Amino acid sequence: MSKSESDYRTRHVAAPGKKDDFRKIDPNQDGGLDSKAAVANRLAECRERMRSLQAALYAERKRAVLVCLQGMDGAGKDSVINNVFSAINPMGCRVTSFKAPTELERAHDFLWRHHQAAPEAGMVALFNRSHYEAVVVERVEKIIDVETCKARFVEINDFERMLSNAGTTVIKFYLHISKDEQLTRFKARLDDPLKLWKISAADFEQRAKWDDNLAAYADAVAHTSTATAPWYIIPSNRKWYRDLVISEIVTGTLENLAITPPKPTSDIDKLRQYLKHAEHAAKG
Amino acid sequence: MSKSESDYRTRHVAAPGKKDDFRKIDPNQDGGLDSKAAVANRLAECRERMRSLQAALYAERKRAVLVCLQGMDGAGKDSVINNVFSAINPMGCRVTSFKAPTELERAHDFLWRHHQAAPEAGMVALFNRSHYEAVVVERVEKIIDVETCKARFVEINDFERMLSNAGTTVIKFYLHISKDEQLTRFKARLDDPLKLWKISAADFEQRAKWDDNLAAYADAVAHTSTATAPWYIIPSNRKWYRDLVISEIVTGTLENLAITPPKPTSDIDKLRQYLKHAEHAAKG
Repeated sequence: MSKSESDYRTRHVAAPGKKDDFRKIDPNQDGGLDSKAAVANRLAECRERMRSLQAALYAERKRAVLVCLQGMDGAGKDSVINNVFSAINPMGCRVTSFKAPTELERAHDFLWRHHQAAPEAGMVALFNRSHYEAVVVERVEKIIDVETCKARFVEINDFERMLSNAGTTVIKFYLHISKDEQLTRFKARLDDPLKLWKISAADFEQRAKWDDNLAAYADAVAHTSTATAPWYIIPSNRKWYRDLVISEIVTGTLENLAITPPKPTSDIDKLRQYLKHAEHAAKG
Repeated sequence: MSKSESDYRTRHVAAPGKKDDFRKIDPNQDGGLDSKAAVANRLAECRERMRSLQAALYAERKRAVLVCLQGMDGAGKDSVINNVFSAINPMGCRVTSFKAPTELERAHDFLWRHHQAAPEAGMVALFNRSHYEAVVVERVEKIIDVETCKARFVEINDFERMLSNAGTTVIKFYLHISKDEQLTRFKARLDDPLKLWKISAADFEQRAKWDDNLAAYADAVAHTSTATAPWYIIPSNRKWYRDLVISEIVTGTLENLAITPPKPTSDIDKLRQYLKHAEHAAKG
């Protein structure tokens, strides 16, 4: 692990057991990196490493990675998937975009649908929104009361520890934008026919509950950022910084797994024999 | 649609109702394009178009695309997914790699597991191996008899027509390599610790049945290449030509859908009002 990744993880992790006031975290941070152009090479190099590490994870087929993306509307969840995870082989990457639960899903416990989308060995799974909606939106909308919410924090920790025990590394990103930046992005969506589909009245309704949502996120993060399944609070007003930091953290996390190529099995000699026979037959 | 794409589709489509002898199709074809370097710009330009067309498909959320990839071991199915489909947003692309059916899957009709993986509106789904294994491998291995296989051709056509009626464009690629090229690729896998996991004794067993497999593919393609769900036989000895042709055919297929951005709904004026209020509140 290079120093810079280590820095990003240390700098942006939500320390387990500590509660941050999200209003005091500056969404404009850019690590003194100046501009998108200044980090282009670094991002490209990071994407290459991520690509080869993911190929090794897939080949090893022993462990998995689950990435949860959360954030206010317009924070950039969809863009992060496009900009960061297009670096890796689509065969080894599965994205699940969680919407409002269906009738069937509501008839189950809140973790049911998320568990089904958990990655099998070898895979990287991305949750575009996740089980954390059930302790943020549902709390703010008063679908659940505070006691239920606290119980869910425990259930989430149990769930993620279980995944971790089974070999799945869980990392969680909160994309942190300012309320002004959200407005700028809403306006851009309204002004662009190609982006218009991304905005609806519901986005403005949620915006009106900005502080409640922010407080609910802060509480959820404080209760569920653990050593095995950490939360990272990503300053996301500057899209290029957001993408760089997430790329570096994901790559650093993969590097920490110390994946080695699967060892030759005992029948490698037999395979070489088969090859010789086939070569002989091809010549004959 | 540019002339070149039209050419590729016309050149490599398996004409419905006509049976080709696959042994007579040259896997070394390269369209006179010379080399990988010579087509790099063209491929990059095609990837950009594919990327923006897929974004439009996702935004429209009315239609879907299903791409089936078939071919002998080593033909390049995994590489095509990596090289061609990494061009598009992972959020709008789902890959399902079908292995030997599980006990539960075998207890269902052969289309059951494939139907579950079919793309919902807005999505591109890739089948890495597909329901065609059930009319090739299962036929060659004598798991089913010829009558059952012919019945399955009809069922496949019915299934794909139904998907097509529901708005899903189905395209199917057979990656055509020579038996010598397969051996070269097997050797490369045995010689590279990072690729060793991709080869097993089963690959050599299948290789011994090359002609039977090729004949089964030819028969399956002859019975299931239709105007709505065509097969393309892709010369795949030269990887760069294979990737270029598939990229152009997929892009051309997306262009044919004539996707238009979703029209502003009636509440666009209301959304603009919300924006004004929010801007006013932000200043206040």
